[in-house]
Amino acid sequence: MINVDKNITLGKLAVLSVMYSGEDESALQKKGRELGYRLYKGKVGSMDSSKIFAAVETAAKKEGLIDQRYREEHALYHSVLEAYSGMCRGQGGLGSILRSAGLLFCIVRGSKIPGGDGDGEWIAVALYGNMGAPIKGYEHEVLGMGMNPI
Amino acid sequence: MINVDKNITLGKLAVLSVMYSGEDESALQKKGRELGYRLYKGKVGSMDSSKIFAAVETAAKKEGLIDQRYREEHALYHSVLEAYSGMCRGQGGLGSILRSAGLLFCIVRGSKIPGGDGDGEWIAVALYGNMGAPIKGYEHEVLGMGMNPI
Amino acid sequence: MINVDKNITLGKLAVLSVMYSGEDESALQKKGRELGYRLYKGKVGSMDSSKIFAAVETAAKKEGLIDQRYREEHALYHSVLEAYSGMCRGQGGLGSILRSAGLLFCIVRGSKIPGGDGDGEWIAVALYGNMGAPIKGYEHEVLGMGMNPI
Amino acid sequence: MINVDKNITLGKLAVLSVMYSGEDESALQKKGRELGYRLYKGKVGSMDSSKIFAAVETAAKKEGLIDQRYREEHALYHSVLEAYSGMCRGQGGLGSILRSAGLLFCIVRGSKIPGGDGDGEWIAVALYGNMGAPIKGYEHEVLGMGMNPI
Amino acid sequence: MINVDKNITLGKLAVLSVMYSGEDESALQKKGRELGYRLYKGKVGSMDSSKIFAAVETAAKKEGLIDQRYREEHALYHSVLEAYSGMCRGQGGLGSILRSAGLLFCIVRGSKIPGGDGDGEWIAVALYGNMGAPIKGYEHEVLGMGMNPI
Amino acid sequence: MINVDKNITLGKLAVLSVMYSGEDESALQKKGRELGYRLYKGKVGSMDSSKIFAAVETAAKKEGLIDQRYREEHALYHSVLEAYSGMCRGQGGLGSILRSAGLLFCIVRGSKIPGGDGDGEWIAVALYGNMGAPIKGYEHEVLGMGMNPI
Repeated sequence: MINVDKNITLGKLAVLSVMYSGEDESALQKKGRELGYRLYKGKVGSMDSSKIFAAVETAAKKEGLIDQRYREEHALYHSVLEAYSGMCRGQGGLGSILRSAGLLFCIVRGSKIPGGDGDGEWIAVALYGNMGAPIKGYEHEVLGMGMNPI
Repeated sequence: MINVDKNITLGKLAVLSVMYSGEDESALQKKGRELGYRLYKGKVGSMDSSKIFAAVETAAKKEGLIDQRYREEHALYHSVLEAYSGMCRGQGGLGSILRSAGLLFCIVRGSKIPGGDGDGEWIAVALYGNMGAPIKGYEHEVLGMGMNPI
Repeated sequence: MINVDKNITLGKLAVLSVMYSGEDESALQKKGRELGYRLYKGKVGSMDSSKIFAAVETAAKKEGLIDQRYREEHALYHSVLEAYSGMCRGQGGLGSILRSAGLLFCIVRGSKIPGGDGDGEWIAVALYGNMGAPIKGYEHEVLGMGMNPI
Repeated sequence: MINVDKNITLGKLAVLSVMYSGEDESALQKKGRELGYRLYKGKVGSMDSSKIFAAVETAAKKEGLIDQRYREEHALYHSVLEAYSGMCRGQGGLGSILRSAGLLFCIVRGSKIPGGDGDGEWIAVALYGNMGAPIKGYEHEVLGMGMNPI
Repeated sequence: MINVDKNITLGKLAVLSVMYSGEDESALQKKGRELGYRLYKGKVGSMDSSKIFAAVETAAKKEGLIDQRYREEHALYHSVLEAYSGMCRGQGGLGSILRSAGLLFCIVRGSKIPGGDGDGEWIAVALYGNMGAPIKGYEHEVLGMGMNPI
Repeated sequence: MINVDKNITLGKLAVLSVMYSGEDESALQKKGRELGYRLYKGKVGSMDSSKIFAAVETAAKKEGLIDQRYREEHALYHSVLEAYSGMCRGQGGLGSILRSAGLLFCIVRGSKIPGGDGDGEWIAVALYGNMGAPIKGYEHEVLGMGMNPI
């Protein structure tokens, strides 16, 4: 078993959550919540990049991970944009350059390290899945992660 | 314990290796090697982005993860470039825009899924660590991953 | 009152025009025209970035700020592209990354400084307004300016 | 005289401050401070882009515009990066692509509109000056502006 | 006549093929095939960048220049992406920034130099034509070329 | 022999000149000059991208391809920047990302088509050579071309 007390940090929690499944995922998320983190995992697949932004923002609002103020939406938006840019590895675009993405996403809100470090809350977004031609099997793994103060 | 037989894929192995430490890291790498993957983990920290490329390439050559042909160096180089671009999240540069990175890297060579899928070998590079101002503590987690056929 | 004789330059005239309103805007544009500049201010709002280019080019042609030659359209186009890129601050795209822009634009044609400096005419484009989520109020100010010889 | 009560907003205050000089600059900054904004204007010129970041950050810390927490430095850093990217209009780099910049910068901290709008404080950075070949006179005006919640 | 034995290399063959027409084109392609290269030339015009990718990939599959494995499609895809990025010269996008492209493309598969150099086969893609406003005549020449091991 | 009367255009002349050598190069340049074009070919190799800009600009000034006005230097500069960006295929940087370039360059000044088309003079820059690791032989061909009105 992973010693999540010693190892867990905000970005790592988002990335491991998005990569784990089944029991490992439940155990990790349970531990994360015990440490004070709020998190949500969902999925989105599209050739239209705006759908990735819409899916993450909708989930964040529905789950109460951000409140009504624009400054909170701005922090989340920029974390999605960073994760999306990271996943695209220097070449932005999905359908416009004839590629598609099937992704899992995880949003985590909390301090950069468990118990806090005097630096308030941050929000991290991790995107993980496959990107490739719009033909089944013609794809490989991609991953991006971004975080901002909130 | 994570059921690595069911869950392990090339990119995931690189990312989990770079994020784990201690016993979790040893167990994962052992399982990865049993599944036929070759891998190496190292570290690099700098304000000079070229040092990241140099560290990964030097390690890959020393560990025999790539051979002498330019096509192999080209595949590795582009995997590092993708991971570096991913980590920079759309805004390239370290020292040129007054930021620094302290990173761990992991190189993995093998098929996209264990046992192969008729698509030959690929090489993945994951970079994980902290990026921020060149002042201790003024940083946050970053992560990038790239992979190419080799 | 601003001493526009002393302070006015091509780029500054475009940016101040796009930011002023009411009497300040009229006084500034009057002064600009007295100094030999030709200018036009309009507005455009969209999630479709191509509409920004279309609006500025249409206005420029209608107002006679560029003639029929491709070299003049090329100079204007690249000034719009620079202003658009500047406004996007390193991350291109509007609707494709789920954001919208409501803008004012100003085109100015003339020498880089009033009275000329032996370097012929240049054309500047300034874009100013708000960019954000396609939800009222969820936005902040943005600004971009580009100029090219014509 | 400009009716700054009606017209002033965070981004506009930063841009007008960086473009005005003499009495206009003093009057505007006085009005801005009366409205609750904190601001500072300075200058930097270099072929080394990192010097722009260093100059703005040093001034912000010295003037108490940001406090000791990393989240405040992060907000400022990203506002400088946005203004720098905006000024570079899609093509990053100064000395690396043989160009130089002589700039004035202005940092403003306060609410997006005077009196606040329930969205807390934001920090804006405007960069304005000339960019061109490292030869006197071979340059033209450039401008960039970025803002983030703080 | 050009002494193609002495001068021909993979990238050069793709670029010259896409630029030549009539007898020069036939003679060059005949010489290229004698040297062991496989090649195909086609055309595509659009404001939709994805159509460029679709046209080149469709032709490559139909002409048997790539086989069924994803690693071959990946090599071709990245060569098209490099040629497209090269042609766009740092500013991606066609219709999204109100410009259109009328292009000829050439795909060449073979060793980097005739007779091989121990570095296996590579695949090069060259795009050449005109890019500009969606108005006849308002355009200028553009060219991009990318190559990857396959 | 290539029928250069029928086929020659500004961008094509720059690219063919930079790719040809020996008698083919002399014959093409002679024909180009007969058609009214002014051109120069030189070489530059470096890990420092600014040296490419310096080499082309120095040659252009020395050969009288541009005059003293900033608008002419600006047109040339942007043509070099476009060619450099094109050659880098979406990922800027040489030494900063541990790669090196050994290049030939060609500058051509004249109308877009021989005899003119009412659109004045344009200036084109083509860069062609090899880019790769700073190790002999570890490289492949690259090419970029940009043009602007002058």
